[in-house]
Amino acid sequence: MNHFFKVKSLEEVMERVKDFSLVDSELIPVGDAFSRVLARDLVAKTDLPGFRRATMDGYAVAANSTFGASESNPAWLTLAGTISMGDIPGFALETGQAAKISTGGMLPLGADSVVMVEHAELIDDASVEIYKSVAPLQNVIDASEDVAKDETVLPQGTFIRPQEQGLAAGLGVSKIRVYKRPRVGIISTGDEIVPIEEEPSPGKIRDINSYTLSGFIREAHAEPVCYGIVKDDRAALRKALEKALEETDMVLISGGSSVGTRDFTVEAVSSLKDAEILAHGISISPGKPTILARAGAKPVWGLPGQVVSAMVVFKIVVLPFLNHLKGLDDRDRTIRLPAILSRNVASAQGRREFIRVLLEHGAGRITARPVLGKSGLIRTMIHADGLLEIGEHVEGLEKGALVDIILL
Amino acid sequence: MNHFFKVKSLEEVMERVKDFSLVDSELIPVGDAFSRVLARDLVAKTDLPGFRRATMDGYAVAANSTFGASESNPAWLTLAGTISMGDIPGFALETGQAAKISTGGMLPLGADSVVMVEHAELIDDASVEIYKSVAPLQNVIDASEDVAKDETVLPQGTFIRPQEQGLAAGLGVSKIRVYKRPRVGIISTGDEIVPIEEEPSPGKIRDINSYTLSGFIREAHAEPVCYGIVKDDRAALRKALEKALEETDMVLISGGSSVGTRDFTVEAVSSLKDAEILAHGISISPGKPTILARAGAKPVWGLPGQVVSAMVVFKIVVLPFLNHLKGLDDRDRTIRLPAILSRNVASAQGRREFIRVLLEHGAGRITARPVLGKSGLIRTMIHADGLLEIGEHVEGLEKGALVDIILL
Repeated sequence: MNHFFKVKSLEEVMERVKDFSLVDSELIPVGDAFSRVLARDLVAKTDLPGFRRATMDGYAVAANSTFGASESNPAWLTLAGTISMGDIPGFALETGQAAKISTGGMLPLGADSVVMVEHAELIDDASVEIYKSVAPLQNVIDASEDVAKDETVLPQGTFIRPQEQGLAAGLGVSKIRVYKRPRVGIISTGDEIVPIEEEPSPGKIRDINSYTLSGFIREAHAEPVCYGIVKDDRAALRKALEKALEETDMVLISGGSSVGTRDFTVEAVSSLKDAEILAHGISISPGKPTILARAGAKPVWGLPGQVVSAMVVFKIVVLPFLNHLKGLDDRDRTIRLPAILSRNVASAQGRREFIRVLLEHGAGRITARPVLGKSGLIRTMIHADGLLEIGEHVEGLEKGALVDIILL
Repeated sequence: MNHFFKVKSLEEVMERVKDFSLVDSELIPVGDAFSRVLARDLVAKTDLPGFRRATMDGYAVAANSTFGASESNPAWLTLAGTISMGDIPGFALETGQAAKISTGGMLPLGADSVVMVEHAELIDDASVEIYKSVAPLQNVIDASEDVAKDETVLPQGTFIRPQEQGLAAGLGVSKIRVYKRPRVGIISTGDEIVPIEEEPSPGKIRDINSYTLSGFIREAHAEPVCYGIVKDDRAALRKALEKALEETDMVLISGGSSVGTRDFTVEAVSSLKDAEILAHGISISPGKPTILARAGAKPVWGLPGQVVSAMVVFKIVVLPFLNHLKGLDDRDRTIRLPAILSRNVASAQGRREFIRVLLEHGAGRITARPVLGKSGLIRTMIHADGLLEIGEHVEGLEKGALVDIILL
């Protein structure tokens, strides 16, 4: 074997994130952009809203026409007209004049504010009484108040939430350049694994990990590509790996928990052109038997076969790499929920430990209750809402401690 | 108009959730089930894993063969064979015997535990020294330890996360009955609204809300269907509404912030057969001008036109209805993050207020910084990470208060 055993710390593994290439970009309709990542800075081509706009139903005025107005001493203004929604007002206001306007309507020239309908009373067809003064720009949005032309409103690497999608649409960006959804290949290995449609004979087990990993990949807004089950055979694994590397941006080899299968994974990767093993083992628990390799500019992972270990490793270790591939900026997006620990938890020093917890929402506080059970039991992940992280240099945590929980 | 003005509290509106029908169910491949909702209880047809399985590389033994074993006083066991992955062992163990086994391998008859390879040493081809005793079932998963046959493992209404998808796959459920993705129609209204591809003339604005709402609908794992922009015209709105109600499970009429447009919405809904206005205004801010109606068993919403108001109303009010339609159990899934308020915040009594906040992660604490700005400014939602909820009977909150933030 052309490698030596390299167990790395989580930090050392994370330092390799930037070794890998981002996926390509593509131009897509902005209506489909939710959950994508901006591949270029978004620069405003126009002001938004582009004109001075009412935010209330009421009367457009020049604010100084209302100064000093009160219930006991209202300002009398002449009605210059009514502004129809979506129209350019056909008149300008002078001091002492007002115009009826609806929310969203365009203020006429000469008007800088809107008196709410509740603070005014129409006296007759030609005049209105104002009971409360307004300040300039009160109850309006000015032409460039939301966005000014030429402003960089969203930087490259921004995750597109509904509001970013709306902003781009509002600026007239009907097609937007985003990173492609990364494709992630999943190869299941192990002589004991059978397809889920088969009735496993004793000694064999259905392929769970391909399905949990597919789910996590979709949750991360990427596209899983399953390459089925490969028996513990060097040549077959290498062949599947080559195909997956050709068709996807990252490959997960799932299932090799026994030393033999792990060796096959390492040998298959090492035999590729321009490939190297970056980590053979990570000092985390569960998940120590994880392998990270580089094949060209693409990451290849050997994930533990234990269902829980595979899930924890995906969430904690693989996901930041996937986020990098898909072009996300490196802001930490992990949601950590502060909670009170329900019992003492012991931990071995020298490795980062991740304990499954159930969250209980009580009066004003959240309790994190460790879910006990072996890391081969998927039911423990069904019961869990989150993961409690315990550092390398911590021997354990006491009941009642305030802890941060990574949501699952 | 055949209705009277009914402003409801948020609680009153939420009581109507159960008035509406769930969408139909469908049978889909389990590999596509992530983010769907179970339409039937999932009952295990088999035990999982189905046989006694090693969770470590090592030696399968009867635990009592190792009792008393230690570094200074090892137990000598005879090697009865090696168990190949995925095979049924062709032999049974007797007391005093051991068999080499890999993680995931099936224990032979007579074995109830596994000694880790680190705690054993092969002496020759026929014997192994054990340095540490094991307890029965140590380092193994028993046949029905993860799931027992006939157990209800997941109830109807469960949201399918990656682990639920994996569990179903592991139990051989290759096709799974889930609720369909709800289709949500979006009708944009307002004479001032133009399609985003158009250059808006002064007084007009691009259709932002269709895009923010589409994003929120996708984020909720439902399917948006856009019906374009309808001018402020009763007949046109009624026609669009009828079409949307025929094709989708819930309809959002977006944009009617001015009193006139709101009236059109109410009139269009009221003129339908078997329809009623359930709320004409909700005592929340932003979002007061929201309309909820029932058309048959489908909800119809009149959402405020202000971009921020529309988003807040979707997140706080519409989403629980959408979750109900899609079959989700009524567990509250809102993630609330405890944070420290950065400044005093005033609030009007008599309405529930939602303040946009930016979260800053500092040493061991999160600070919630209110994002100032009018509710017509989409940029305030770009800067915000969450919403601070202030109750009806609270006049305001003080700087330094511990608050719960609803994540955006």
